[in-house]
Parts: sequence; structure tokens; C-alpha cells
Amino acid sequence: MKENNTVKNQSITRQEDDFAKWYTDVCLKAELMDYSDVKGFIIYRPYGYAIWENIKAYLDHRFKKSGHENIYMPMVIPSSLFNKEKEHVEGFAPETLICTIGGKNKIEDPLIIRPTSEVLFCQHYQKIISSYRDLPKKYNQWCSVARWEKTTRPFLRGAEFLWQEGHTMHETEQEARHETLSMLEIYDELGKDLLAIPFSKGRKTDKEKFAGALETYSIEALMPDGKALQCGTTHYFGQGFAKAFNISYQSKEGKLETPYQTSWGVSTRLIGGIIMVHGDDNGLVLPPFVAPIQVVIVPIAQQKPNVLPEARKLFELLEKENIRVKIDESDKTPGFKFAEWEMKGVPIRLEIGPRDIENHRCVLAKRNDGRKIVVDQDNLVEEVKSLLNTIHKEMYEKAYKFLLDHTTEVHSFDELKEVVDKGGYAKMMWCGDQECEDKIKEITNATARCIPFNQQGFDDTCPICGKKAKKVVLFAKAY
Amino acid sequence: MKENNTVKNQSITRQEDDFAKWYTDVCLKAELMDYSDVKGFIIYRPYGYAIWENIKAYLDHRFKKSGHENIYMPMVIPSSLFNKEKEHVEGFAPETLICTIGGKNKIEDPLIIRPTSEVLFCQHYQKIISSYRDLPKKYNQWCSVARWEKTTRPFLRGAEFLWQEGHTMHETEQEARHETLSMLEIYDELGKDLLAIPFSKGRKTDKEKFAGALETYSIEALMPDGKALQCGTTHYFGQGFAKAFNISYQSKEGKLETPYQTSWGVSTRLIGGIIMVHGDDNGLVLPPFVAPIQVVIVPIAQQKPNVLPEARKLFELLEKENIRVKIDESDKTPGFKFAEWEMKGVPIRLEIGPRDIENHRCVLAKRNDGRKIVVDQDNLVEEVKSLLNTIHKEMYEKAYKFLLDHTTEVHSFDELKEVVDKGGYAKMMWCGDQECEDKIKEITNATARCIPFNQQGFDDTCPICGKKAKKVVLFAKAY
Repeated sequence: MKENNTVKNQSITRQEDDFAKWYTDVCLKAELMDYSDVKGFIIYRPYGYAIWENIKAYLDHRFKKSGHENIYMPMVIPSSLFNKEKEHVEGFAPETLICTIGGKNKIEDPLIIRPTSEVLFCQHYQKIISSYRDLPKKYNQWCSVARWEKTTRPFLRGAEFLWQEGHTMHETEQEARHETLSMLEIYDELGKDLLAIPFSKGRKTDKEKFAGALETYSIEALMPDGKALQCGTTHYFGQGFAKAFNISYQSKEGKLETPYQTSWGVSTRLIGGIIMVHGDDNGLVLPPFVAPIQVVIVPIAQQKPNVLPEARKLFELLEKENIRVKIDESDKTPGFKFAEWEMKGVPIRLEIGPRDIENHRCVLAKRNDGRKIVVDQDNLVEEVKSLLNTIHKEMYEKAYKFLLDHTTEVHSFDELKEVVDKGGYAKMMWCGDQECEDKIKEITNATARCIPFNQQGFDDTCPICGKKAKKVVLFAKAY
Repeated sequence: MKENNTVKNQSITRQEDDFAKWYTDVCLKAELMDYSDVKGFIIYRPYGYAIWENIKAYLDHRFKKSGHENIYMPMVIPSSLFNKEKEHVEGFAPETLICTIGGKNKIEDPLIIRPTSEVLFCQHYQKIISSYRDLPKKYNQWCSVARWEKTTRPFLRGAEFLWQEGHTMHETEQEARHETLSMLEIYDELGKDLLAIPFSKGRKTDKEKFAGALETYSIEALMPDGKALQCGTTHYFGQGFAKAFNISYQSKEGKLETPYQTSWGVSTRLIGGIIMVHGDDNGLVLPPFVAPIQVVIVPIAQQKPNVLPEARKLFELLEKENIRVKIDESDKTPGFKFAEWEMKGVPIRLEIGPRDIENHRCVLAKRNDGRKIVVDQDNLVEEVKSLLNTIHKEMYEKAYKFLLDHTTEVHSFDELKEVVDKGGYAKMMWCGDQECEDKIKEITNATARCIPFNQQGFDDTCPICGKKAKKVVLFAKAY
């Protein structure tokens, strides 16, 4: 006999026992993903993929509203083309997946499965940009990319993952810089509006920036184990790629000019962030606006004649209001169903049984804190809508409090070590030399996560080298 | 100097001079796609990709409404897994694209870029199906696939193309057969509702069916050159794959049973169908409900003070009603703009100039037949909405008339040859033997496109062999 995979009431590892094990337990038991035969290539199961669809819908709308157009580039890049921008190649070459056989024949110029598509966009832009009238070009692509990583973990680091990559070209440096920052802002708002995750925003140090970029910006989230998770990046390229690819345009004044470039992306790694930031020992806890199911109706004593009809009435009521609702009519016990939907992190469980029906009420149970509210059925729609907002707010605030509680100003190497070892951000004033960054990395394994936009200083000297401090930096261990 | 790619008023090849050249001219000049460096891998440019997004939105909604869930499978299949279903392998092996190097190391079990994902779904289903409670499983995936084809043409045949692939598992043969036909019905309705293409529906002969399927059904469209284009297929697999992959479930009665399987897909090939069925010597002609831009506003004498403000007012009026509208304020001449938007096939061009403003009216020009209508601005929204419906209907009917006019009952091999050589469907009564099919293919290069559902017979014997005729079949040359 095969195992019955629908049974979900096995306990999962507790967070405090083994956070990494808890994480993969949740990924599997909440049916977000499954492993395939090839390391690092995961199956995005319907429940996990639906989370990605909700993120995608939000961002796609924001991108289009801000004048971006979707495009689809080939999934392969000829090696010869890939090698055109030096720094870029060096950054990605070690982890490329390469096709050498097509239709049983050897491919002369082996094809690299795109790890990112800068070079493809550049080549296309070279063909289609010739006048200032062709600018700006603001393209985005939803696709999957491949990076042959040694260590892989579901959603967090994959040999293949789903993402969007924006690639834009502009007439002026100012416009391109503005694009770089305004896309970071959209990512930040994704956190506020949908994921209930407060991001730390800022610029990457030169050591940590993207291969080929002049500047990289990122949104970083702090996980419960005190490690940071880079959740999205935007890059300002200046004219580097454009020059390497001979992209030029005739300006209004008739001069030949080189445009300025950006790229930016977020990936299914965000799902990993959601799992870790909000999850608990009962499984997933989904923020309401990204949850595939916002309300699950669990009928109590459903064998009694009027329970299912009444439950279905409430289902229809909520569905009509575009609330993502599901009714669980399976023949499992209520307790079993409770555990199952808790594991899946559904924000609100609606219980309705004979006594509730008698009193024309029902019970709403909040996944994020377990509290229950008894509501009159006449107010159900408003109560649910308001509760979804409340839950979102509570989840965001909890995560924000955790972030504040785990961000510590440090004034010495010892303090820094203590903070990053315990877990959390060490906020330090830094001289700006990579040597100090290298030393921190070597001794503590922490890295500069970002140079936050808020640069309110507090020390005069860099605690690592004693030289003049120039920048506030957030250091942490990271995924 | 580089060529100015924004100029679009070059004439394109006329259809009657060279239909194939006309087709690729339109693909490029309407900015639907561009070539990449790798043969058969095209760039889906924003205007082409937006058509695909509209098709996707329609189908995704229909799929979800009929209980299907989206999922994402790995883009690679290990060779060892790919070889598990014999017929299937034989069908696809000659055109596989294979990765042999990952992170600079040789991959022991080379990875095939998915040409289709039956084996991945089967392997997953083997893991997650164990009880009748787990059935049906109705999954769909939106992705790109790779097939190393020798002859490639934009949208029609690519080394990479975008598609959706549905894969479902059912308790009973009846349910699986119903799924196979009801998905075909959704594809047919896509033609009626969105693409303005009348499809011929039916079953494929055994010779033409999908590798590994028991039965294949297809929707076929007739192109202006008289060749058929297979636009989508649905497959009934019976239990073949399920047995090869050891998929079984425990029935309500406690017995171990094997489920029944289907798969179905349409691809970006549909865009090729739209181009050919509706296009003319001025370029693309888009059916209104799949068109990325439904109305383009071209201001006349836009330098005059009140023209642009008035044009923008109409733009806002239409946009508020969710009509996909664009205003062309560029400094090109109206004539130039007309040609450009005609090339791009926008269904309605709205012209507004000083005299129109004086009379509180504007002009609507229909792309499909060039007719112009003068409308009062007060009725603009209703007029546009009604005109979009009219244009859709006219385009569908024109294509339907073409289909009827080019479907001919044939009673002899000579008649068949004449019909398929001239172009169009030869409707023939067939004995059912593959020998006759082979002979037709060998001599005329026509193939059995489908065995239509309407089986009203008209001959007693097969004109090829003289044996008893069993089935009505549509023969045609095909893409």
C-alpha cells in the first residue's frame, strides 16, 4: 500500500528545534511544492503557484500602470553572446546550465539556459533603438531562469526559479536612476500591501552589487532565525552594457548618444520569505491579500440536515463579494480539517454548526493569533472584510516589531559579532573600504545587506579600522 | 547611421505575390516578433505578447471556472525519466534539446528541455494520488517548451514556443473522455469568442494522433492559401501512461484501480492563425476582443489649439469604459499614422479634427473593411462598443464563408487531388485503412486533418481503394 498523502495531521518539526527542518516541513506539508528528480528543480504545486499568481497579478498591474510592457525573450543564450559583457560573464559563468545537443546533433555554439537576460535585451535594444523617439523602452518579462547552484532550498535557492526581470533604456542618467529607485519603491509596496513584510531598503555595497551594474539596490527582509533574506533587487547600469552592445540613438539635436539602462527583479523566493516571516509551529500563516484561500468554511456536525445548506449559503454570500472562499465538505472530522487548514495558513476559518444556525451567527477564527469572534450572519460580509484588513495589519506590525527589536546599533567589532551571531541586523557606521567588509565576512560570516536610505549617523569612526566613518550599513548573516 | 526602425510605411509583399513572404513581413512590420541569434527561438515583442496575454486571460478564466488548477513543473526532464513511455519517446526523441553541462561539470543523466510534460505530470501524480478522494486531478501549466525543429517559422513552428498544457487524471474512462471533449469545446469557443476563427473539430486518425495517446482530437483552421493549421489538440490517454508510471488509487470499494488520463494544449501558434486568417495587403487585421489596442485615436491637424484636448477627452471617455484605447500624439503625419495602425491591425481608428469638433462628432474607420462611420460624440461609447461587436461578427462570418467555400466533397482520387492542390478541404468518405491515408499523403502531400463530429455520409465506398467507406474525413495540405 502506498502512503495516504492526503493525511496532513502529522506534526511538523518545531521552529525552535530546527528552523531549517521546520521550513522544508511546511513547504511540503502545506502542499506548496514537491521535489523533482533533479536537484534544485522543484514542482510548484497549485497552492504554492497560486501565491505566485497573486504576487504576479499585483506587480503586473503596477508595472503596466507605470508604462511597462511585457515581452518574452528566448530561454537560451548562445555562449558567444553571453560572453560579451565581461563582469557579467564572470558573475554567472560558474552556475550556467548548458545545452550542447539539439535534435541528436552537436550544437556548435552551445546554448546557455538564461540565468538572467541582460544580454538578450541588449541585443534586441541594439536593433530597435535608433532615435530619441524610441526611448524610453520599459520592458518586463515573466519567465523561469536556471542557475546551477550547489546548495538548493525550496523557493530560497533553486536551479530553476520563476521571476520577473525588468529591463529599461532611457535618454538620461537621471531618468534611469529614477526608474531604478521607483521600481524598488513598488517592491517595497508589494511588501506593505500584499506580503505583510516590512522590507529594509537601500543600496548594496560595491562588493555585494550585481555583476555588471554600477549600483544595486535591494529590499531585505529579516527572518525569525535572525538571518536576512534578499527579496528583490534593482540595478542601475549606466552605459556599460549599452556601450558593449553598441546601443546608440540620435538625440533631438541630431547627435549620436548612448542610452542609460536599468534592470530589476523579484522571484518566487518571496514565497520563502512569506513562509518564514509569518509561519508558526502549526504551519503556514498567510497574509490575507496574498492567500489563495482567504476564508475556509468548516461545517460542524455536517451530517445534520440544515448544516451544509446553511454553510453553502454563507459560501455564496462571500464568493459574490469576491472573497476567496472555500467550503470543506469532505468526510473528515472538524478537528482534522482545522489542523489541515491551519497547516495551509488560511487567514480566517469560519465555523458553522447547528447551534450557530439556531442563533443566526457563525464563528470566525483567526489563523494569525487563534482568536475567535462570534458574528451575526447579517454582518458577515463586512465582518470578514474588516477582519482581513485587521489580520493583514496585525501581521505586518508583528513583523515590523520583530525587525525593530532585532536591529541593534553597534559601536565595536565585538558588539557586531554578538548581534549577528545572536541573529538580527547590526547597524554600523562604516568607513567605506571593502577591506573592513571582507574582514567582517571572514570572521562572522555576516555581509553588508544594504546601505539604508535613512543615513542618520551615530559614530565618527568605523569600528573595524578606526578610520572616518562614512555610511550607516546593515550587517547580518543572510540566506 | 543605423536604420530608423520606427518607420513603418514600407510596403509589404502582397499576399498573392508570395503568401509566405507576406506572412513574415507582417510578423516583423507589425512588430509582433523579432528573430534572435538562435534559429527557431523568437522574441515575442510587446504587441505580439499582448495578444498572447489576451488569449491566456480568456483560457485561464475558463480553465479555473471548470475546476482546473495551475501548477509549474521543472523545465527539464532527466533522460532516464523521459524514456519511460515508449511510443512517447519515439515521437519526441528526434527533436529534443539536451543539457549536458551544469556548473562546468558533465551531467550524468542529461537533462532534456521539456518538449511536453506528460512524464513529469505522471511522476508527480504517482506520488500524490492514492485514494479515490484524490481524484479527479485537473492541472494546467503555462510555460514554454523546446522542440529542435529543422524548419521553423514565426509562431507556426518554433524551437521554443509558449503554450499551456493541461494534464488530468480521472476515476472513470467516461469522465476522462468527457474532459477530452469538453476542453476541445473550450478551444472551439476561444475561436468563436475571441479569435473570430471558425474551427473544424474532430478526431485525428491513428496515423496523425499524439505519441502515446489512444485518441487525439483537434481544432483545425483553414488558411487563405488553402492549407490547414492545427490550432490545438486534446488527448485521451486511457491508462497507458498511468500503468507505465505505476499510478493507482484505492477505490471507494477498497480495490486498487488505475486512473484514466487526458492532456490538452494550445500554443502561440494561434497568433499565426490570427495573422493568416484575417490579415490583408495592408498588414494585420485583429479581431476586436483579442486586439491589444481596440481603438486608436488619430488627431487631425493636431497643431490647432483645441484638437489634442478634445481628442484626449474622447480617450478618457473610452478608457473609463475599459475599451483598450490609445491616442497617437506623435509628430508624424495623419497619413503615416493611418498606415502604421493599419499595419498593426487596430480594429477601429477614430479620427477627430477641427471640423469634427465644430460638429461635435468624430469618424470611426473600420480596419476590416475600410468603411467609415460619422458618429455624434454623445453616442461614442455605445457606437464603439457596438462596432467592436459588429467587426468581430463580420470577421468571423467572412472566415466562415471562406471555410464553406473551400470545403468540397470529393468522390474520386482525382477530385481529391484537384481540391487539395487548389487549396482547401477535400471532404472524403474513407475506408479507415492507413494504407489509403499513406497513399494520399505520398501522392498529394495532403493529410487527414480530422474526422469531423458531423459524420453525415455521402458515398458508399472509399475512392482510394474501393472498399466500404466508414468515415467522413477532411483532407488538406497543412502547416
